[in-house]
Amino acid sequence: MNDLTVKLRKFAEERDWDQFHSPKNLAMALSVEVGEIVERFQWLTEEESHNLDGETLTRVSEEIGDVLIYLVRLADKLGIDPIKAAKKKLEINRAKYPKDLVRGKSKKYSEY
Amino acid sequence: MNDLTVKLRKFAEERDWDQFHSPKNLAMALSVEVGEIVERFQWLTEEESHNLDGETLTRVSEEIGDVLIYLVRLADKLGIDPIKAAKKKLEINRAKYPKDLVRGKSKKYSEY
Amino acid sequence: MNDLTVKLRKFAEERDWDQFHSPKNLAMALSVEVGEIVERFQWLTEEESHNLDGETLTRVSEEIGDVLIYLVRLADKLGIDPIKAAKKKLEINRAKYPKDLVRGKSKKYSEY
Amino acid sequence: MNDLTVKLRKFAEERDWDQFHSPKNLAMALSVEVGEIVERFQWLTEEESHNLDGETLTRVSEEIGDVLIYLVRLADKLGIDPIKAAKKKLEINRAKYPKDLVRGKSKKYSEY
Repeated sequence: MNDLTVKLRKFAEERDWDQFHSPKNLAMALSVEVGEIVERFQWLTEEESHNLDGETLTRVSEEIGDVLIYLVRLADKLGIDPIKAAKKKLEINRAKYPKDLVRGKSKKYSEY
Repeated sequence: MNDLTVKLRKFAEERDWDQFHSPKNLAMALSVEVGEIVERFQWLTEEESHNLDGETLTRVSEEIGDVLIYLVRLADKLGIDPIKAAKKKLEINRAKYPKDLVRGKSKKYSEY
Repeated sequence: MNDLTVKLRKFAEERDWDQFHSPKNLAMALSVEVGEIVERFQWLTEEESHNLDGETLTRVSEEIGDVLIYLVRLADKLGIDPIKAAKKKLEINRAKYPKDLVRGKSKKYSEY
Repeated sequence: MNDLTVKLRKFAEERDWDQFHSPKNLAMALSVEVGEIVERFQWLTEEESHNLDGETLTRVSEEIGDVLIYLVRLADKLGIDPIKAAKKKLEINRAKYPKDLVRGKSKKYSEY
């Protein structure tokens, strides 16, 4: 992950794109890339979404790459470590959703 | 990252939430969490977005955590390694946007 | 619709919020509100999504209101008539998806 | 607006696409189309976003059409009148944000 952060920093610098990478713009770019993932799944049933054909899987993989790229850029610009942030959030969720209380309930989860 | 993937898998299993985690649903959850990041930035200028106050920064950090959580879950369900996917996408971008041609041009970039 | 456009213009003026309503910011606000709609549906099955409970339906109705509010504001700022734009797009779609060719096919539709 | 609702209903029926138009799927489609609007604005400054070139304006107009199409479809499926919903929401906002208290403050607005 650190390696990716550094590579992306260098990629932007070499192209003088840092000027466009305000956190505001990166948040927008992140939402655009997620929209492209959602597009792949919008007309599929949940079951179909588990079994993508090879072409769709390749595209989704590229788009997951794009989302991670912008997420890492945004986090880097704000001085946040995304892995640490996710682990911290997981601990918050662990306290908020005790496994014995929420087992099998999406209702509870939807208030996540 | 692998460690996070495994922790999230266990977290879902312990709550019997795997049944809700179809790739279709996880793509939706991912877009919801990104919407919460965009919400923090929507009325800020680009300059303001570089200098968040402490409270906003804490919230954005949690939401970056949430986005990574759902991205890792989605990738896991589809058998994709998100770091590898990002690095592969970066190589594609490197070929597509030669640094000497696109230097300082957002126009080109917006066709990304 | 015209009536709504005028009311929203006045609402922003009275609060001196026009300064925040750049098309860029309104596009972000639009995506935030859509995220709130998606949140209501993320863990529901397609069938459940047809039969919302009263509380959820009220919330979704408010959020549909929010989305239309920002869509109308954005269109107004750009000098676009949203109803005309939708009807024009419908004619484009009619030509692009002849009913006899695409009947019952989501695949085709997903390339929409 | 009513006219548009009826046209869209007929358009879906003629193509046997009603089966794909669950509220869940329509919410996803809505978010995908909004992502395409955000894409046009992501690297523009706020000022640039007020002055789109002709080609971009045409594209944004089509995408505003798409967003309204899916918003109307979603509302129709749930028995909601989108214009009424927006006017009702506007009244709620009027009470929530008294013009004398919030004048020129985006901070307040961001808690919208």
